[in-house]
Amino acid sequence: MRLSKPNIQLNSQGKLRHFLTLEGLKAHHLTEILDVADSFIDPETGDIRKQDTLHGKAIMNLFFEASTRTLTTFEIAEKRLSADVVNLNIATSSTKKGETLLDTLWNLEAMMADMFVVRHNESGAAHFIANHVAPHVHVVNAGDGQHAHPTQAMLDMLTIRKHKNDIFDLKVAIIGDIQHSRVVRSQIQALSILEAREIRIIGPATLMPSHPEALGVHVYNDIKEGLDNVDVIINVRLQNERMKSALLPSEKEFFNLYGLTNERLAYAKPDAIVMHPGPVNRGVEIDSEVADGPQSVILEQVTYGIAVRMAVIQILFNNAKALAAGESK
Amino acid sequence: MRLSKPNIQLNSQGKLRHFLTLEGLKAHHLTEILDVADSFIDPETGDIRKQDTLHGKAIMNLFFEASTRTLTTFEIAEKRLSADVVNLNIATSSTKKGETLLDTLWNLEAMMADMFVVRHNESGAAHFIANHVAPHVHVVNAGDGQHAHPTQAMLDMLTIRKHKNDIFDLKVAIIGDIQHSRVVRSQIQALSILEAREIRIIGPATLMPSHPEALGVHVYNDIKEGLDNVDVIINVRLQNERMKSALLPSEKEFFNLYGLTNERLAYAKPDAIVMHPGPVNRGVEIDSEVADGPQSVILEQVTYGIAVRMAVIQILFNNAKALAAGESK
Amino acid sequence: MRLSKPNIQLNSQGKLRHFLTLEGLKAHHLTEILDVADSFIDPETGDIRKQDTLHGKAIMNLFFEASTRTLTTFEIAEKRLSADVVNLNIATSSTKKGETLLDTLWNLEAMMADMFVVRHNESGAAHFIANHVAPHVHVVNAGDGQHAHPTQAMLDMLTIRKHKNDIFDLKVAIIGDIQHSRVVRSQIQALSILEAREIRIIGPATLMPSHPEALGVHVYNDIKEGLDNVDVIINVRLQNERMKSALLPSEKEFFNLYGLTNERLAYAKPDAIVMHPGPVNRGVEIDSEVADGPQSVILEQVTYGIAVRMAVIQILFNNAKALAAGESK
Repeated sequence: MRLSKPNIQLNSQGKLRHFLTLEGLKAHHLTEILDVADSFIDPETGDIRKQDTLHGKAIMNLFFEASTRTLTTFEIAEKRLSADVVNLNIATSSTKKGETLLDTLWNLEAMMADMFVVRHNESGAAHFIANHVAPHVHVVNAGDGQHAHPTQAMLDMLTIRKHKNDIFDLKVAIIGDIQHSRVVRSQIQALSILEAREIRIIGPATLMPSHPEALGVHVYNDIKEGLDNVDVIINVRLQNERMKSALLPSEKEFFNLYGLTNERLAYAKPDAIVMHPGPVNRGVEIDSEVADGPQSVILEQVTYGIAVRMAVIQILFNNAKALAAGESK
Repeated sequence: MRLSKPNIQLNSQGKLRHFLTLEGLKAHHLTEILDVADSFIDPETGDIRKQDTLHGKAIMNLFFEASTRTLTTFEIAEKRLSADVVNLNIATSSTKKGETLLDTLWNLEAMMADMFVVRHNESGAAHFIANHVAPHVHVVNAGDGQHAHPTQAMLDMLTIRKHKNDIFDLKVAIIGDIQHSRVVRSQIQALSILEAREIRIIGPATLMPSHPEALGVHVYNDIKEGLDNVDVIINVRLQNERMKSALLPSEKEFFNLYGLTNERLAYAKPDAIVMHPGPVNRGVEIDSEVADGPQSVILEQVTYGIAVRMAVIQILFNNAKALAAGESK
Repeated sequence: MRLSKPNIQLNSQGKLRHFLTLEGLKAHHLTEILDVADSFIDPETGDIRKQDTLHGKAIMNLFFEASTRTLTTFEIAEKRLSADVVNLNIATSSTKKGETLLDTLWNLEAMMADMFVVRHNESGAAHFIANHVAPHVHVVNAGDGQHAHPTQAMLDMLTIRKHKNDIFDLKVAIIGDIQHSRVVRSQIQALSILEAREIRIIGPATLMPSHPEALGVHVYNDIKEGLDNVDVIINVRLQNERMKSALLPSEKEFFNLYGLTNERLAYAKPDAIVMHPGPVNRGVEIDSEVADGPQSVILEQVTYGIAVRMAVIQILFNNAKALAAGESK
């Protein structure tokens, strides 16, 4: 699925105005996010320092699909940049009163929102909103349908870079429901843009994409072969809804075939890192011994998620400022 | 309906201590709100600048009746004044545990609240609360039953003034459910205090007040006659509950008789502005062509709502400071 | 019930790192909290001044058990210390998605939480969490099962001290459901540590603890005898759930036997103060005449609750700073 005009997220200087998808972005866009995120992290303590950058800016978190976890990380990131934050549970708002999505959007925009962070169960929702906001308003995609979850992919890239210095030259394996996951879609795009040496996807045929070659990935149905000599292992969260369908027989059977155990982990490089977007289904996608083991960087991912979200938000505002400065010359 | 002692909202210097209703206020009270609101708006960019005025003050939004839209505008206004903001969904609070409203109120007051912004489905609720708070606590009415919604009316006045300079000398037409709307009640009071030349109300007889002459308004049952040569058109939102009752046959019939179309709009002055408190029922109160047309100022109303709410809140605190300074001399 | 290792809440310097229970604390721990709380209160106006102390710190309120009242006081206290505050309604969060409590906790911790304020309907929940957080993270117990509610007890102590100067030498009577109340458990511990001269508990035998002598309290089944010559009267809130069980026949009967009326109050010292944790069941635990009478300090308790919670939070962070400074020498 290609959504219309991915370059809607770039301004006339080729810089990010919105952050909707990784599709169509260049390596320098991603590297800037990683560099800025890194600059927020205290190298000694690992603490992420509060910034005053967004004092006086209003960010609205529009979560049409509930997600305490993602909402909380955005909320913390926004407050750590000193923005004024408003959370909107859209299910209970005036959309009930018969207002259309666009009317809701324009009304929120008129309430002096400077940025919308959008989560929606329909693919393309963030693009749709970005296509209709005023020139000074920014949109960040916090997950749309099966389409994209770009900040999640970027926090994964930061985690990899923190451990492996450079994504270039790495072999990365992604295990699980590849076909239906917006996180994986964004991960593969990020890894491709940053020129990972090899991207492998591992899982049952029913959960594999129909045209893997178009994605530039290699499919493995056997997990041991797939993990052979990789530097990075990324688990995908299995969605319960999916497992209730005919695509997967049972949690137990999935674990038997594709669950990440220490035995299987041994096929990867000895210093391979293990990632998972959380929340972890212990004993389904991954064994507790691995999830809590020395190669797991699952909790670091969460922390880097704060830094990456702060970076994306700050970059969007800075780019607008640079654009305005350029135009006023 | 006249609620007891409207002057409860004035302090001993005749300045606003609470903001409950427009009834009993003078033109200078309203003009001050409009002037302060205007001062917050950047004349070049239209941006509403963050103020540090209320640093250290705690404002509690007590919404006994849900309203994402009004709550959000108050929340943004309060944060833009640097207050500490706490939202209380009273339906789920200790009122359930058998606590009376007054006990709840006194407890919240004891939690160091400096201001309550109150929305309630019973007329007089904000007055009741204002009658019982400590001397230093301010109350703002964010809508009570069918009684008043004064900040909504004031944002309408700011919108009119931004476009027409002065309310004096204008002909204003209000279309819809006049009888049951707290917004209209406040609008008529504001227009009267600011001496609008003529106030017309338009709608079916079942939705007109029983004694329009007491309100100083002229009734029109024919929309074309009512709109003839007016400067300002204000739509009233139809409440679904009302339409389910016998008072109105159907949405379709209402639109046929009173929906604002371009054809009907042509009866007003060519530069007439079109207002609506939102959310708009497209194809019921107003045609989309008009709502999105060049004469519509519906979204500006939302923005001015932030400025007006900031102004009201700041004025109440400033008046208390001036009073204390006067008394300590 | 003794939960494992109450000294988990002390750091290697013997200072508070967490605030979970009063059990095992010394008088100087409690006195410091009262002194710091007092220092926040403006002696002239009674206002509690905003502090910048926690600028850049993130506090998460984890309320597994709903409580608008306690949540609000913590939220106000945290914001008045300039912390970034995130409220988490855990019932709707990813625990639903099958994540274990520990996974949830570690994830929230990885989101850069510096403190968890925890309320849970199971005894020991805050201890459990404190046992598993990273060294720099603090935990405050905002009520766990029937175990403890230490900030509530400390606000009671501050209230008593504000009126009676010293807890030493006072006779204190606690009336109501002693057996099942976490508040009472903490109150008795606080009063014992601060060496109140006499602690009496008053109520029907079914609501008395089985081994009162182990708590150092005296049991009275007759309220007049129990109130004789006391300095402080503390009402306990009756839980509806309890009253529906066989332990109590009816609200009316409870009031007849143990309700605090002016007639009964007369048995106490003339300057005795009357306390209640709220929300008050008027006509059940206490007569309105007494609740609103001159000896009632019920609303002051609420205000002191803000100051005490600010004090506890600030002390925990300050102790960590002092510890780090000591270790880096």
